[in-house]
Amino acid sequence: MKKFDINEDPHRRYNPLINEWVLVSPHRSKRPWQGQNETVTSDALPEYDPTCYLCPGNVRANGEVNPAYENAFVFENDFAALKQEEIAFEEDKNQTFFKAQPERGISRVVCFSPKHNLTLPEMPVAAIENIIHTWQKEYTDLGNVDYINHVQIFENKGSVMGCSNPHPHGQIWAQSSLPTEVEKTQNNLKAYFDKHESTLLQDYLQEELKLNERIVIENDHFVALVPFWAIWPYETMIISKRHFGKITDFTEAEVKAFATILKQLTTKYDNLFETSFPYSSGIHQSPTDGELHPEWQFHMHFYPPLLRSATVKKFMVGYEMLGESQRDITPEKSAEILKNLLGSHYKHSL
Amino acid sequence: MKKFDINEDPHRRYNPLINEWVLVSPHRSKRPWQGQNETVTSDALPEYDPTCYLCPGNVRANGEVNPAYENAFVFENDFAALKQEEIAFEEDKNQTFFKAQPERGISRVVCFSPKHNLTLPEMPVAAIENIIHTWQKEYTDLGNVDYINHVQIFENKGSVMGCSNPHPHGQIWAQSSLPTEVEKTQNNLKAYFDKHESTLLQDYLQEELKLNERIVIENDHFVALVPFWAIWPYETMIISKRHFGKITDFTEAEVKAFATILKQLTTKYDNLFETSFPYSSGIHQSPTDGELHPEWQFHMHFYPPLLRSATVKKFMVGYEMLGESQRDITPEKSAEILKNLLGSHYKHSL
Ligand SMILES: O=P(O)(O)O[C@H]1O[C@H](CO)[C@@H](O)[C@H](O)[C@H]1O
Ligand SMILES: O=P(O)(O)O[C@H]1O[C@H](CO)[C@@H](O)[C@H](O)[C@H]1O
Repeated sequence: MKKFDINEDPHRRYNPLINEWVLVSPHRSKRPWQGQNETVTSDALPEYDPTCYLCPGNVRANGEVNPAYENAFVFENDFAALKQEEIAFEEDKNQTFFKAQPERGISRVVCFSPKHNLTLPEMPVAAIENIIHTWQKEYTDLGNVDYINHVQIFENKGSVMGCSNPHPHGQIWAQSSLPTEVEKTQNNLKAYFDKHESTLLQDYLQEELKLNERIVIENDHFVALVPFWAIWPYETMIISKRHFGKITDFTEAEVKAFATILKQLTTKYDNLFETSFPYSSGIHQSPTDGELHPEWQFHMHFYPPLLRSATVKKFMVGYEMLGESQRDITPEKSAEILKNLLGSHYKHSL
Repeated sequence: MKKFDINEDPHRRYNPLINEWVLVSPHRSKRPWQGQNETVTSDALPEYDPTCYLCPGNVRANGEVNPAYENAFVFENDFAALKQEEIAFEEDKNQTFFKAQPERGISRVVCFSPKHNLTLPEMPVAAIENIIHTWQKEYTDLGNVDYINHVQIFENKGSVMGCSNPHPHGQIWAQSSLPTEVEKTQNNLKAYFDKHESTLLQDYLQEELKLNERIVIENDHFVALVPFWAIWPYETMIISKRHFGKITDFTEAEVKAFATILKQLTTKYDNLFETSFPYSSGIHQSPTDGELHPEWQFHMHFYPPLLRSATVKKFMVGYEMLGESQRDITPEKSAEILKNLLGSHYKHSL
């Protein structure tokens, strides 16, 4: 009987953060693609777009005028999925099938730069440090609101990720409940901590550094790697080397190191298919419920959809929706490809 | 304080099948859309396409020639994500972070019709009955393979769902493990059954029929409804009225009734935005592991991506990937819209 070869044979891998599996089919990366192609707009964008509702000085949907901002700029989302209003509600504890509860929250938009055409990989490190300081302030301010227990910082980049405006920006949704994915993660982190008296991601990172098979970038304070259980073709995770739970725990050296690794990782992404690389990214960190949460370790996820080129993405559809996430290229292969890419941005190198 | 109004206020709903929540933001359906539009190919397709690898008589990627089939036609997937080969493997029980196991399986393609341009809503009921009989045979044959414990029948329809060929077809991935989503469902069905000595979906269906707020179609043997916890804008579920676990338990009257409701539901879908409506659908039913599984009840999920028109879909991205699924329009509103749509197909009505 053939012996199991993880680089060749179909297999499942376990994700200990959410207690779910992914189906890996290494041999399948050879299949031809005859399906949908994404459109890429390679048109050079202007530094200022008079029709963009995020550019400085322009008018937003609700009639407000953006200030002439020069660094990161934050405002309340004009079409928020959450509302701040307190709602009276009595839970019916007997309900099994029609369980619903009102949810309070605050939703903000963070413009990363006044420049309409300046995405993270092309920004100076200092400008990214400014974004990190903004995230710190928002995490603190929103987390201090009495009913807010979780602050989700994220970015949707590229029209293929549902982003409606190329102006570099992210969002923050802060709310009273722990969202499903965070609650799953917390439960698994907590169970591990209770059992081992150490942090899951800290122990995982040590093993990854020893193996050195999935590391993409490492600096003094952070590591960017393709997790062993990644579901998206070029999914990565940035993990802090030091054990701390939240962005407000950063030292100034860590702010700089995080800004640097963000720039380097997104530059590699752009270089991969020589395109402005789409993804959804977001930070997972301690809830703001006032508890200590020693089980948490600061990390950031990148979920990019592209598979083979700037126009061919991975579709997470039928089997994936009904059964299990599935990937073709192995995480080790993806990590190797990303690691070997140039550090300078393709648009600016000769 | 304002009293909770489920039709207006942001809230979370609980999905007892997978123990997860969805964030519902009813007020948000008013937001304008400036993002990506999907392309719709409204070109009339021919009944036979000489370049299609699924049409009768044509040659497939591996050199095989399709027979001149007249009904549903099944073949092994030429680019299967699973392989049948047995792989020697010894589990390392101490492994926490790098848990992997080989996975064996069989992957098949089911052509629904020899006609290149005939999708489910436009087929005669008898032709859909033939597809159901084919699914029954496959569930039996694949389920009888000693190492196969789960048979996932599904369809990806439309290029927006990663379907690379408009020729009407579905797939079957049969494998040794329970895929993640099925395992989650099974755990919740089982816990409910052990506690109540009745089936979760049977009890849920009775409540839904009483409330009559989310029912789209009902016939003697099946109900199509928008689940209380639906995440996609026009997500539906078909549930059998009688309690049984698998497609091979159908009486002949149930085969006919299921074919009829499939035709009616997909016709309403096409009529919604007057387009060939994209979705991923799939059947969840008893595993084929030889156990009895009284906790299971046959049902089929439909996950369609479209939100507002033939070209504007819902993006499940940043917040949804990192936090929780989110929807704008309420399930009740969607059910009402679907229910009130005409029963005859827009292309064929005058
Ligand atoms: O097998 P197909 O139709 O080529 O591929 C499609 O369905 C599969 C199963 O849902 C997915 O894994 C693929 O990403 C998708 O493109
Ligand atoms: O808020 P935006 O950018 O308009 O919308 C985008 O991000 C949201 C949060 O991930 C999603 O709910 C929307 O489906 C997506 O289009």
